[in-house]
Amino acid sequence: MLGADLLCDTLLSNGVDTCFANPGTSEMHFVAALDRKPQMRCVLGLSEGVVTGMADGYGRMADKPAATLLHLGPGLANGLANLHNARRANTPVLNVVGDHASYHLHNDAPLTSDIESLAWPMSNFVKRIASAADVGIAAREAFDAAILTPGVSTLILPADAAWGEVTADAEKSPARSKADPKAGPLNVSGLQAAANALSSGRKTAIIMTGRSLRADALEVAGRIAAKTGAKLLSQVSNGRIERGLGRVAVGKIPYPIDQALEALKDFQSVILIGATEPVAFFAYPGKPTHLLPRNCEVIKAAGIGDDHLAVLSALCDAVGAGEATPDRVTQRPAPAPLPAGRLTATTACSLVARHIPENAIICDESVSSGRNFFDETNDAPAHDYLQLTGGAIGIGIPLAAGAAIACPDRKVIGLQADGSAMYTVQGLWTQAREGLDVVTVILSNRTYAILQGEMKNVGVEEIGRNASRMLSLDEPAIDWPTLARSLGVTASRAETVEELDQALVNAMAQTGPVLIEAVIA
Amino acid sequence: MLGADLLCDTLLSNGVDTCFANPGTSEMHFVAALDRKPQMRCVLGLSEGVVTGMADGYGRMADKPAATLLHLGPGLANGLANLHNARRANTPVLNVVGDHASYHLHNDAPLTSDIESLAWPMSNFVKRIASAADVGIAAREAFDAAILTPGVSTLILPADAAWGEVTADAEKSPARSKADPKAGPLNVSGLQAAANALSSGRKTAIIMTGRSLRADALEVAGRIAAKTGAKLLSQVSNGRIERGLGRVAVGKIPYPIDQALEALKDFQSVILIGATEPVAFFAYPGKPTHLLPRNCEVIKAAGIGDDHLAVLSALCDAVGAGEATPDRVTQRPAPAPLPAGRLTATTACSLVARHIPENAIICDESVSSGRNFFDETNDAPAHDYLQLTGGAIGIGIPLAAGAAIACPDRKVIGLQADGSAMYTVQGLWTQAREGLDVVTVILSNRTYAILQGEMKNVGVEEIGRNASRMLSLDEPAIDWPTLARSLGVTASRAETVEELDQALVNAMAQTGPVLIEAVIA
Repeated sequence: MLGADLLCDTLLSNGVDTCFANPGTSEMHFVAALDRKPQMRCVLGLSEGVVTGMADGYGRMADKPAATLLHLGPGLANGLANLHNARRANTPVLNVVGDHASYHLHNDAPLTSDIESLAWPMSNFVKRIASAADVGIAAREAFDAAILTPGVSTLILPADAAWGEVTADAEKSPARSKADPKAGPLNVSGLQAAANALSSGRKTAIIMTGRSLRADALEVAGRIAAKTGAKLLSQVSNGRIERGLGRVAVGKIPYPIDQALEALKDFQSVILIGATEPVAFFAYPGKPTHLLPRNCEVIKAAGIGDDHLAVLSALCDAVGAGEATPDRVTQRPAPAPLPAGRLTATTACSLVARHIPENAIICDESVSSGRNFFDETNDAPAHDYLQLTGGAIGIGIPLAAGAAIACPDRKVIGLQADGSAMYTVQGLWTQAREGLDVVTVILSNRTYAILQGEMKNVGVEEIGRNASRMLSLDEPAIDWPTLARSLGVTASRAETVEELDQALVNAMAQTGPVLIEAVIA
Repeated sequence: MLGADLLCDTLLSNGVDTCFANPGTSEMHFVAALDRKPQMRCVLGLSEGVVTGMADGYGRMADKPAATLLHLGPGLANGLANLHNARRANTPVLNVVGDHASYHLHNDAPLTSDIESLAWPMSNFVKRIASAADVGIAAREAFDAAILTPGVSTLILPADAAWGEVTADAEKSPARSKADPKAGPLNVSGLQAAANALSSGRKTAIIMTGRSLRADALEVAGRIAAKTGAKLLSQVSNGRIERGLGRVAVGKIPYPIDQALEALKDFQSVILIGATEPVAFFAYPGKPTHLLPRNCEVIKAAGIGDDHLAVLSALCDAVGAGEATPDRVTQRPAPAPLPAGRLTATTACSLVARHIPENAIICDESVSSGRNFFDETNDAPAHDYLQLTGGAIGIGIPLAAGAAIACPDRKVIGLQADGSAMYTVQGLWTQAREGLDVVTVILSNRTYAILQGEMKNVGVEEIGRNASRMLSLDEPAIDWPTLARSLGVTASRAETVEELDQALVNAMAQTGPVLIEAVIA
């Protein structure tokens, strides 16, 4: 048995049964080993940003890591931006990167580069496998780190560790993880401080991310809020929120800095569950980078890897909120019909929100055009809401693909900015090949609109030729339906409210990947 | 005046007048500064792999660096694979990466990452600008390193260095480079050893890369070969070779390891001009990684940054070859017509070779399907030949775009593997927007054919479902003409020799970007 086979066995014995891949020559022994294990599902991405973005979407929805398979330093590099997003979403990912045989590294062959240096900025754990004998333990360590942090573990697999023979002992017992994400002790002093703040009458927010944004934990947080008047907030961007009808709603800290400062200005205490202290997404001349008021008390009640449900339950007990009734989302009156005719960003998002089916997964990479979408979907049927967490654009299409692979029975809706979609447009091909039930709505404004706004923020009123060439996506306009069809995805274009409404009716009635270009002003 | 303006002025005063860009919020002050400088040409790429690949193609043909503009760590990460290729091609690139304001870094905002750690593996020079006052000197140092190494210099531009005011002194005199790539001393002992080897009667190869592969240097190398019987070889992959009719031909070390060992097995001495000792592209079990025979003498006569024309001229004098007549390429008899009917990789490449116009630039990312193309173009009209140097696929489309921007009066021909083309297919849009005179021929075999071969090398005879799903590009087949048209590029499909012949006639007769899908068996 080879090291490559032992790696497969160790992955499978720990429940890792999906591998997103774009392999190369140095990974051929691992490919051959995967080929001997039909119980492993291997999914090809036509660029590594697609591969890692799918692993992110899968991990967010499956609550366990997928493996990736990337080709040396450049293959890893291509996948780093979406690993950055996965790291910021605290998604478990077991990122396998092939490398040259260990004895070949010092020759500095053309594809050689410093993989550790590339991997560390986007990983919580990096390990180079020393030899075939080391494969099982190293893979188990990487798995443990991925589920405990949780986050991205990078495992570097030299070709000779993959093709080397392992001993009979290692072969008999692939290393099984004993790590338990729920086993950590509660932070007693943090809990006490949080309970004191909630009982003090001070204006308090509970800022959450990670598993505290699942329906069960939000239900408990909702009891605390009902009893104490605390405000429930989530970070600007979160890996996954369970929300919609029947669930306890949680607000988001706004992205634009002035709105974020306004939203937080009155709080005297904030309790962090998984989240970190809110800071500006970017610095701006003359504006603060810390978003909380100067004297606000900051209480870290739970880290990202802690058991948020247990922490919130303990807090609920401590403030005597066990019998409180949380404020769950109820259906609003049917909204007024939208103004007919040409679409705008606002009407397009409103329409998509009205078409969300029960139990959908929403992947939101709408960037500047989708600012009303989160609020509009507040009372949509119960759904999961996945966001662009790290600000590295190009997550949407692969995120939706990965989520669809994790949850094949659920409809996935991607609300997608056009500029961001182009980064990993290759992911549409994987959606087609795997027959994934994804509806992608491209908000086609033919510009990096967020940057047009930022130009005004730096004092530029009139944009000249150079800036215009760098910020606009027209000349030529991308023909999205044609592009999607060339990669095997059914597609259409909508320019009016009526057309988008009909296109959404059609898309929701079928299964398999569909793309709709919503042309907005 | 702001630091961002001083950066523009310093670039322009050193002749850097082209900026390949995909900016973000933290780069807005630099974008505004570029907007105030219409003499700077700004070219947008819709993903950063396109941006850096264009900078590589531009630098190879312009013999001076372009600037890039990338958005923080993830933007850099997306561009690293093609920076890896640029580094391996020794292309001068001035790679500008924006970052958060320096005082915001410690807040670990969502887009924060360790940019230095990401940049070093693909750069010869990395510097973080300390403040606006530091901009001019730092930019000049980065420029010097880019042209002297030559290679990739990464300059990290914090937002507050861009928006900070510079002093009047700095404003008056942007830092001008005094670096002279031709000023270094010759390696006298290396030259003497090389002359001795050439005069000794030992079987000797001169292995070249870098500027030694330009026509003037090859002419001198050709005299040395004519006088001494030395064999002229280039590396497996080279940034740029001037070749074709009337020029001195130089062979390439083959990519497949067995062929490479065979090609080198008889040499008793090798003289390296810019090149490094040849090693295997990948290690294989039981095969050597060093390609030269055990007792072969290795003489380093010139490093990559040395003046290769001067070194070869000195060597030519030392062996008394000044009057020798080099063996220049002459026209072969007209080749036999190709067998009619369905295209194969071989007939497709032969046909493209026969259509190369005078003074063309060839960008070869044909990978496994184009193995006969280098030989077939040996007696094509004089042209430049640009290769995939670092093995990081996805260079071809942007490389062609960058070369076309550097040389607007020359036809650029991209011979392009389909799997590799998908990595940076977004580059077709830039070809369309800029109206670049590029003909891309997609060798469409719908598989990572090189890996199918490598599976056999690792002993797999029958490929199962998992490996097949990871190595093939069908289900669905990519519709290349439709894909190209969606991005604004004129396109057609050829399935037979006759169709490809006609498509090439049409493509060569027009200007502006054209894509031809050559469907091969």
